[in-house]
Amino acid sequence: MTSIMCSEIREQPGAVARTLDRLLPLRKELRSLARGRRSVMFVARGSSDNAAVYGRYLLETHAGVLASLAAPSIATHYAAPLDLGDVLVVSISQSGETEEIVAMQEWARGRGAATLAVTNVVTSSLASSADVVLPTSAGPERAVPATKTYTSQLAAMAVLGTALAADPTVLDADLARVPGEMAALVEPEATLGSAVGMLAQAGGTLVSARGLLMGTALEVALKLEETCLRPVRGLSYADLRHGPIAVISGELCAVLVSAVDGPLVTGMTELARDLKQRGVGSIVGIGGPADFTSVCDVALPAGQLPEALTPLTAVVPGQLLAEALARQLGVDPDAPRGIRKVTQTEAAL
Amino acid sequence: MTSIMCSEIREQPGAVARTLDRLLPLRKELRSLARGRRSVMFVARGSSDNAAVYGRYLLETHAGVLASLAAPSIATHYAAPLDLGDVLVVSISQSGETEEIVAMQEWARGRGAATLAVTNVVTSSLASSADVVLPTSAGPERAVPATKTYTSQLAAMAVLGTALAADPTVLDADLARVPGEMAALVEPEATLGSAVGMLAQAGGTLVSARGLLMGTALEVALKLEETCLRPVRGLSYADLRHGPIAVISGELCAVLVSAVDGPLVTGMTELARDLKQRGVGSIVGIGGPADFTSVCDVALPAGQLPEALTPLTAVVPGQLLAEALARQLGVDPDAPRGIRKVTQTEAAL
Repeated sequence: MTSIMCSEIREQPGAVARTLDRLLPLRKELRSLARGRRSVMFVARGSSDNAAVYGRYLLETHAGVLASLAAPSIATHYAAPLDLGDVLVVSISQSGETEEIVAMQEWARGRGAATLAVTNVVTSSLASSADVVLPTSAGPERAVPATKTYTSQLAAMAVLGTALAADPTVLDADLARVPGEMAALVEPEATLGSAVGMLAQAGGTLVSARGLLMGTALEVALKLEETCLRPVRGLSYADLRHGPIAVISGELCAVLVSAVDGPLVTGMTELARDLKQRGVGSIVGIGGPADFTSVCDVALPAGQLPEALTPLTAVVPGQLLAEALARQLGVDPDAPRGIRKVTQTEAAL
Repeated sequence: MTSIMCSEIREQPGAVARTLDRLLPLRKELRSLARGRRSVMFVARGSSDNAAVYGRYLLETHAGVLASLAAPSIATHYAAPLDLGDVLVVSISQSGETEEIVAMQEWARGRGAATLAVTNVVTSSLASSADVVLPTSAGPERAVPATKTYTSQLAAMAVLGTALAADPTVLDADLARVPGEMAALVEPEATLGSAVGMLAQAGGTLVSARGLLMGTALEVALKLEETCLRPVRGLSYADLRHGPIAVISGELCAVLVSAVDGPLVTGMTELARDLKQRGVGSIVGIGGPADFTSVCDVALPAGQLPEALTPLTAVVPGQLLAEALARQLGVDPDAPRGIRKVTQTEAAL
């Protein structure tokens, strides 16, 4: 049995390859747009917000550009009198029609910001009112849980993050490898069944990572929650240590996401050991080097890209996990209850 | 029976009054420090991070100053080459000795930032290496869950947020009312017992708010979790709508925090109605006007301050709830397992 979600997971290498082909030539335009702007502010919700978390870390670590995530209520409810004359505002919305995101972009333009829209619909309200558009090329997405539109947004983030770096081309060889690395991951691994079993049995699930992979942890948590209709927390490694680590129990399954390289690998391995010592029920590892996977009860590979691009592949095993767990729990992964494809924050909309 | 945590909750009106008296005269110095800086970046963890969330909203909505929360790994693990020449970095740490916060402040100074430390220990590493210090006057805190040090940090945020506003004095009459409003809340209400009963029976708890009260929701969630050793999620109204609202069930107790005025009151009432319609088990309301409390199963008053200052009082019923629930569950609120008073993010420290 196969779901639409499963087919769309498989379409990702193509969607990301098309998006990169279309957007990489726009780097020069992005540099012009950002000229004279001192910082980047992301505006997004849901999965798009998780893509923004990646965009933020990539801009700060790879391009040396200060970046932050906006609180939309600042615009929609408080109409805060900020001076955005040296800010580039990047709005991300699959549909380009989430009203508060469109409203926030308008507010930002009125406050002096340069505006960039990342959307899958070039005719959308968001696209038509932005200074520059980065259209993702995921094609129409039919399943409610976002998969190929999310990874296409990550591809757009990679284009933006490299465009604003001193040398925009330094990751190009690795970017070219992304579709191939993804293609090797979209067919379920033999270990997926064990991971699904651990999650199915657990009394609670948390997903954790840190730094460039933080957005991936948040997205895997959201995917598991909205697809399988069970509460799942996404937490940074650090926030976990500052409180919630006290409530680790044998009921809990921890999903930990790591790159194979980078400055956070050691910390993620230590976190896995610490959770074990505190009696966590099980650990599902996504990605990471051998030191890390050897501490996990089951390991799902996430490709061999450098940390800066690992988010594009590491989410794939998480998507497969959500899809398979939903079916095991008797939930239709394509249309779990209570979620509309275009989510509006206000109840009345 | 009374706990140290309970005594420290009662000390808050005094702690906040002392902190305001000590810090309000420093507004001019804060304006000088911020001169020529285009934005504020907060650096904090745990409860201090929740105080920073309030600081951020207050700066943006009340002072019109762009503000964001930093990801400490940007400094501690990536040593990101950001230009902070037009940024004021505000580091918040009760002890002033959380190593990554101290390290991040040093990194920020090296990248050109002006530095402001908010700490309860004037002789700490954080204080001694900052350009300007805002010392909170909470006195030594002995219970592990932070209460009076947290509200004293909020008082420091109110001083900073008003100092950088066009007219720093516009909230002064309301600021003067804060200790009195707090004093009326530190003795448990008759309704506290019902709220504790609902939380004790619930299979899960979430805490939600939006805008200026968002930090309060996160802090009440953290307080309930670290004191009672049961997982609790803190979520914004908006993030709840974009996913987790699908998993509302009769098992769940929702704690909703609202101001009595401001642009988000209507939305919080709508959220309460929506959760009811989706079959949430129970709703504990903290604060809010009559329209809001009438939808809640039990209502805990949070004082009558304007929204911009409500965080200083609205956390108090949440603290009392955590303390009483811990005792009902047989947990010592003063020393729940697994948490140290000075938390270090890295396992090895």
